[in-house]
Amino acid sequence: MRILAIDPGYDRLGIAILEGTASKPILVWSDCVTPPKGAHEARLAAVRTAVEESIEKYSPEVLALEKLFFSVNKKSALMVAEARGAILSVAGAASLPIVEFAPGTIKLAVTGHGAADKKAIARMIPLLIKLPEKKRLDDELDAIAIGITALSGRFPQ
Amino acid sequence: MRILAIDPGYDRLGIAILEGTASKPILVWSDCVTPPKGAHEARLAAVRTAVEESIEKYSPEVLALEKLFFSVNKKSALMVAEARGAILSVAGAASLPIVEFAPGTIKLAVTGHGAADKKAIARMIPLLIKLPEKKRLDDELDAIAIGITALSGRFPQ
Repeated sequence: MRILAIDPGYDRLGIAILEGTASKPILVWSDCVTPPKGAHEARLAAVRTAVEESIEKYSPEVLALEKLFFSVNKKSALMVAEARGAILSVAGAASLPIVEFAPGTIKLAVTGHGAADKKAIARMIPLLIKLPEKKRLDDELDAIAIGITALSGRFPQ
Repeated sequence: MRILAIDPGYDRLGIAILEGTASKPILVWSDCVTPPKGAHEARLAAVRTAVEESIEKYSPEVLALEKLFFSVNKKSALMVAEARGAILSVAGAASLPIVEFAPGTIKLAVTGHGAADKKAIARMIPLLIKLPEKKRLDDELDAIAIGITALSGRFPQ
């Protein structure tokens, strides 16, 4: 199973391709896409292009996303929802099935604890999957964590 | 000025092309796109396609949208925001400038009253712009109202 895992955002988009099995997940590629500052719709277009290119290049069989809940900042939630819309419209056009996981589920999958913090996630991911050496932003690690959750097949969507 | 006006939605998308002037707005085309029931991402892909096709066919110079505010139904607001994201990513890719109006501004523009109801909008639109005879859903009328607001050039975005 080859998975496209995305941590949605309009300013930073974590994106990863994973394959393998629950016990031996393999990271094929990951990145943090940072659409240049400017008009919101231009950033959404950059998000769309990044997703289209990753589907074209890696032919994933499923798209795994983090579920969006309302944050304290409602405006930010709507803008992230718009990024999700740009991503989902590409996945829909490519007939890619979607799996979504709540943030707590993803934390549980990679740390064993549903209320784990970002540091715990950053510590655990290299123990679960072989990562090429490079500096990564949280968004990229989050995308990898989403991919690990989807590969495990053990968690409710 | 040729305007693409959209009332965003994932189940019903009002869409209209207007041109002309503030005192003589002309409706070039309008429709209510109804993506078939099914996976949300497939509906968003249908939204995207409808917007892409209208841009290709009518070469608008600007996209006018209704601003999204939080409704009582938060889940519905997020899903409409996802539809907006699909629409905006297409506009961004086509380098189409965006103008957005608050719902009260659109009501004010077409009825003279910012708290007008849907009936008042439906009554006023045929007095402001020549409409071909056909049955229209509210979403299509709303898109036409957004286009009239944008053409008038009198209202804050």
